Amino acid sequence: MKSIVIHAAKDLRIEDRVVEDPGPGEVQIKLAVGGICGSDLHYYNEGGFGAVRLKEPMVLGHEVSGHITKLGDGVQGLKVGQLVAVSPSRPCQTCRYCAQGKQNNCLNMRFYGSAMPFPHVQGAFREILVADANQCAPADGLSANEAAVAEPLAVCLHATRQAGELLGKSVLVTGCGPIGILSILSARFAGADTVVATDLSEFTLSKAKTAGADQVINMNKTPDGLSRFMVEKGTFDVLYECSGAVSALTAGIHALRPGGVIIQLGLSGDMTLPLMAITTKELQLRGSFRFHEEFFTGVSLMQKGLIDVKPLITQTMPLAEAKQAFVIANDRTQAVKTQIVFS
Amino acid sequence: MKSIVIHAAKDLRIEDRVVEDPGPGEVQIKLAVGGICGSDLHYYNEGGFGAVRLKEPMVLGHEVSGHITKLGDGVQGLKVGQLVAVSPSRPCQTCRYCAQGKQNNCLNMRFYGSAMPFPHVQGAFREILVADANQCAPADGLSANEAAVAEPLAVCLHATRQAGELLGKSVLVTGCGPIGILSILSARFAGADTVVATDLSEFTLSKAKTAGADQVINMNKTPDGLSRFMVEKGTFDVLYECSGAVSALTAGIHALRPGGVIIQLGLSGDMTLPLMAITTKELQLRGSFRFHEEFFTGVSLMQKGLIDVKPLITQTMPLAEAKQAFVIANDRTQAVKTQIVFS
Amino acid sequence: MKSIVIHAAKDLRIEDRVVEDPGPGEVQIKLAVGGICGSDLHYYNEGGFGAVRLKEPMVLGHEVSGHITKLGDGVQGLKVGQLVAVSPSRPCQTCRYCAQGKQNNCLNMRFYGSAMPFPHVQGAFREILVADANQCAPADGLSANEAAVAEPLAVCLHATRQAGELLGKSVLVTGCGPIGILSILSARFAGADTVVATDLSEFTLSKAKTAGADQVINMNKTPDGLSRFMVEKGTFDVLYECSGAVSALTAGIHALRPGGVIIQLGLSGDMTLPLMAITTKELQLRGSFRFHEEFFTGVSLMQKGLIDVKPLITQTMPLAEAKQAFVIANDRTQAVKTQIVFS
Amino acid sequence: MKSIVIHAAKDLRIEDRVVEDPGPGEVQIKLAVGGICGSDLHYYNEGGFGAVRLKEPMVLGHEVSGHITKLGDGVQGLKVGQLVAVSPSRPCQTCRYCAQGKQNNCLNMRFYGSAMPFPHVQGAFREILVADANQCAPADGLSANEAAVAEPLAVCLHATRQAGELLGKSVLVTGCGPIGILSILSARFAGADTVVATDLSEFTLSKAKTAGADQVINMNKTPDGLSRFMVEKGTFDVLYECSGAVSALTAGIHALRPGGVIIQLGLSGDMTLPLMAITTKELQLRGSFRFHEEFFTGVSLMQKGLIDVKPLITQTMPLAEAKQAFVIANDRTQAVKTQIVFS
Repeated sequence: MKSIVIHAAKDLRIEDRVVEDPGPGEVQIKLAVGGICGSDLHYYNEGGFGAVRLKEPMVLGHEVSGHITKLGDGVQGLKVGQLVAVSPSRPCQTCRYCAQGKQNNCLNMRFYGSAMPFPHVQGAFREILVADANQCAPADGLSANEAAVAEPLAVCLHATRQAGELLGKSVLVTGCGPIGILSILSARFAGADTVVATDLSEFTLSKAKTAGADQVINMNKTPDGLSRFMVEKGTFDVLYECSGAVSALTAGIHALRPGGVIIQLGLSGDMTLPLMAITTKELQLRGSFRFHEEFFTGVSLMQKGLIDVKPLITQTMPLAEAKQAFVIANDRTQAVKTQIVFS
Repeated sequence: MKSIVIHAAKDLRIEDRVVEDPGPGEVQIKLAVGGICGSDLHYYNEGGFGAVRLKEPMVLGHEVSGHITKLGDGVQGLKVGQLVAVSPSRPCQTCRYCAQGKQNNCLNMRFYGSAMPFPHVQGAFREILVADANQCAPADGLSANEAAVAEPLAVCLHATRQAGELLGKSVLVTGCGPIGILSILSARFAGADTVVATDLSEFTLSKAKTAGADQVINMNKTPDGLSRFMVEKGTFDVLYECSGAVSALTAGIHALRPGGVIIQLGLSGDMTLPLMAITTKELQLRGSFRFHEEFFTGVSLMQKGLIDVKPLITQTMPLAEAKQAFVIANDRTQAVKTQIVFS
Repeated sequence: MKSIVIHAAKDLRIEDRVVEDPGPGEVQIKLAVGGICGSDLHYYNEGGFGAVRLKEPMVLGHEVSGHITKLGDGVQGLKVGQLVAVSPSRPCQTCRYCAQGKQNNCLNMRFYGSAMPFPHVQGAFREILVADANQCAPADGLSANEAAVAEPLAVCLHATRQAGELLGKSVLVTGCGPIGILSILSARFAGADTVVATDLSEFTLSKAKTAGADQVINMNKTPDGLSRFMVEKGTFDVLYECSGAVSALTAGIHALRPGGVIIQLGLSGDMTLPLMAITTKELQLRGSFRFHEEFFTGVSLMQKGLIDVKPLITQTMPLAEAKQAFVIANDRTQAVKTQIVFS
Repeated sequence: MKSIVIHAAKDLRIEDRVVEDPGPGEVQIKLAVGGICGSDLHYYNEGGFGAVRLKEPMVLGHEVSGHITKLGDGVQGLKVGQLVAVSPSRPCQTCRYCAQGKQNNCLNMRFYGSAMPFPHVQGAFREILVADANQCAPADGLSANEAAVAEPLAVCLHATRQAGELLGKSVLVTGCGPIGILSILSARFAGADTVVATDLSEFTLSKAKTAGADQVINMNKTPDGLSRFMVEKGTFDVLYECSGAVSALTAGIHALRPGGVIIQLGLSGDMTLPLMAITTKELQLRGSFRFHEEFFTGVSLMQKGLIDVKPLITQTMPLAEAKQAFVIANDRTQAVKTQIVFS
């Protein structure tokens, strides 16, 4: 079977890997769709990010869906042929953070396609995947493309929970990549009144509008676009920072009201922040990292039609064109979420 | 001008009152619509409820909208002719609870149409109403009927905030009168995944379905309708108790999961509760009473089309038929929200 | 070895049981001290409580300490001879509540000396006890008597966490048995400003005073003792209900300020509560049930001298006088915590 | 009467001001003691901090106590001769943040001795002070020196509330000036289990030890003093950042466990923070700014002997030596809190 392997920056290869059979409690899945994530792009573009660097070849990919082909011993609640979204999150369930219900902070996490530990955790961009049954969310009624969005949706649902209740609140989203767009959908779904989004790309801003933003601001064209919200010490209750750009975070901080909450989603290195504004306005900057049970929540919400991720998917390309898919995914004038079709 | 005055149980009269001019900071309003609330019905049916009893004639009504006819000195942000929803809540803004931002617990509250203090606080069912400008939410774009639903909507938005974040949660609503239906709309809006509603009337349950309940249960026909949710120590995360009936509250308690939250909205006297279940499942029973800024939030959400209260309004009747309106409002086989048209 | 076995109400026997060796991950403990808990007394006095009834003989006891005599394979961090407090809580660590960090709501809990499942979970009042190593909190520096108070202390620390932050708050404790006294110590330790305690016994009230209550009220002698706190809609921020008596809970509810919190610790059957007061004051009634990591927290706090439980221990009696110990433990004119010395 | 006036950096003068009579609702106070705060030192050393700069002469001081000499009309609950702690916080009570109970974020705050608005808000270092009666906390039983510590204590109590419940938690305090020491006292009082403090001065660290720190670390002598806490992804639950130094904040962030909370108390300009650690550990950085009702809470806790601030007061110097007092207050090898005695 074929898999998509990163060897170094710009060195992406389609390679053969051996097909495995499912062990007890596992299932074998014929992969249908895999979405390219920002971290996949970091490996592709720069061979890593921050202190996380490729040290050996690694199968990429952690946003996947597929159809079950075999059930291992003891697996219940799933059946052959069924479409499933596969969670890339495999916490140990025994460390002290798992025992506290914070599985996303597991000390022994094995998250697909991650170069953080060594040897690296191999990813899910492969034609045949073996996974634990409890990683699989039945996705009946969804397209395989939608099911493959469950992972970034889970990231944004988790972030939204970090924000507390949003009913009637005013929300700013900085950065309209996939995480930004899904944050708009999540905030809207969780009861936000006003949602304003910023980015530098007209294309992604148009997607933000489709996703439900009341107003979008192109910070390239109107760099002081948030300044009117700063009157009377800020207007927004919550900021989802999805750009990883310090200028976006800083502008957002100044547009928050006293007591406002910043959800930091964008992974980035060191950033210089206006601590005086954070202190005197008593803002709360809250990191949000991955997810746990929100993966299953997201699939359920899509199945009920309560959240529609389809507008997010801008390209679907065959496995044979995987390298081209990575090039396109990099281009924010035409891509939000680029997916690779495995079968 | 005419007003609707309750003298004692079943003694409802349409009486003349003197028209007043607005003082500084006040506006004069030509009333358009007034909705009949459960507490209005309690005064009409029984002359009060619990320890709250009529001791003198009282103008009823606290769910009203109208058009501004005059502005008092110093009023800004409102204009003559404008449709406004009028909040019946007039906290003192100086007692210690007001100073803590808990205006709904104001020690000196003067809430329209309330027999709690003596002399009673006269209500808003009158053709010409003088109110403080800051009680008025501009309702441009809404019908007067929708605007008159702002008050019970605010009650349910406030209750929803008491519940904390609802994203992806499972909600049970017991009692499908106006507060139950608006709780369904609010919970749905705040991101609930599953909403189940119970009542004894097929008519109100059909309205619950329209409002977005995934499932409705007629407890008359299927008294054990909630029992399947009790497997594995309960299924629901949140219960909105809107019936004031101890049987509904008790059944709901047994259907909650450990850590579940009960929002008690229905006003009632003493109730016998299964404390053992509350303690061992670590449930939280939280009272919810009235509202404050949620009145303005609700008008905004209706204006944006994010919450649609129209299916709730089952009758609109002219002022001349006010007494008949009270009779109909009592009949749960045909009424959810009955409104009186003043102009 | 000898153990204390309840056969039926008032039928308490000292019986021989076979000594067991520790398996992998387990330790063998020579029991030092066992405290008699309210639930032990319920079994002794009435053969159970509520729906929980004795159906077969059961070793009592879940408040114990002892010295390690043998280590099973793979046990680390403990040594032979060491004094340990033994947590009676054995959650499954795999059910959905355990996975959420709510081990006290484990669906498969095996808590020492509990007749809830059948066959019953046998208790810890036995000369030689085999326990999981992870149930054991090293108690170096404490007396065995103090270590045996870790369990009820954990109950009260858990309850205090349910109350949220207590800094500078005003606290009412109704019922001054062991749980009431430990709640006083816990609330005081967590930063309460004012602590008032009520009971019907002068003896336990004197212990409450010793434990740090600013004021104690004998409700027998001054039945309206809380009424002065009801002025201006109540004075207390938090109520620990530790009596299981509906009169105490009701009086406490009326003495709470709007937004106040009731922590329900006392296990009881159905109770008739003033729902009107709960709703209009927006009180929160929160059940608190057992504990999890607070067991280890409590031992640490005692070791550091931050919480002193010694004044609570009113009697220590030898195993041979166990029956007499149960009689005395029942007598609130002389007993708060009665302990049995096993070695 | 004499007052202490800052004209520019290092230009501190003792000047005459006119004595005022109290108006309605006001009291006249003969000042007893005034503590020198870090912001007073900023004005003295640099003429301001960040964007806040002196533009006209300003009476310094906002940590004061004194004895009432005259009561204005309508003042109740205070009497001539009484010792009071005077809160420097004068929120408008009408803006939207005041209405939400967030008076410390008042849009029209008039806080003593603050160059933020222009004309500046004059301070309280004057022999005769006129203040609103509701700024005054009766301080019977305290020394005037203790009463003058009520203000920084209130800052730290407010910060502690921002941290949520601390029961049994592990706390790190970076910076052992007055705010650091009072944070140690507050965290200890609120139920922290372990408290570790860092600073660069042996003198202030010795005071931290006296105040209850379990362990103190001189980061000059052991720059990797926190590194052992970083094993297993961090040890501390809460960090009080009281130094305003980016190195302290950064070291603290790395020593926090996942989900940990940083309370940012130290006012500073821009800071470069390790966002990757904040995001992946889901830390919460919470600004804490001034206080409101905690001023009165703090006086009450001191009166009851629950918090003892005396060890904090390192110098008391007469008004005539005010300039010398500012020099000493700057010297962290001998000063934590330096106070000026006015009478």
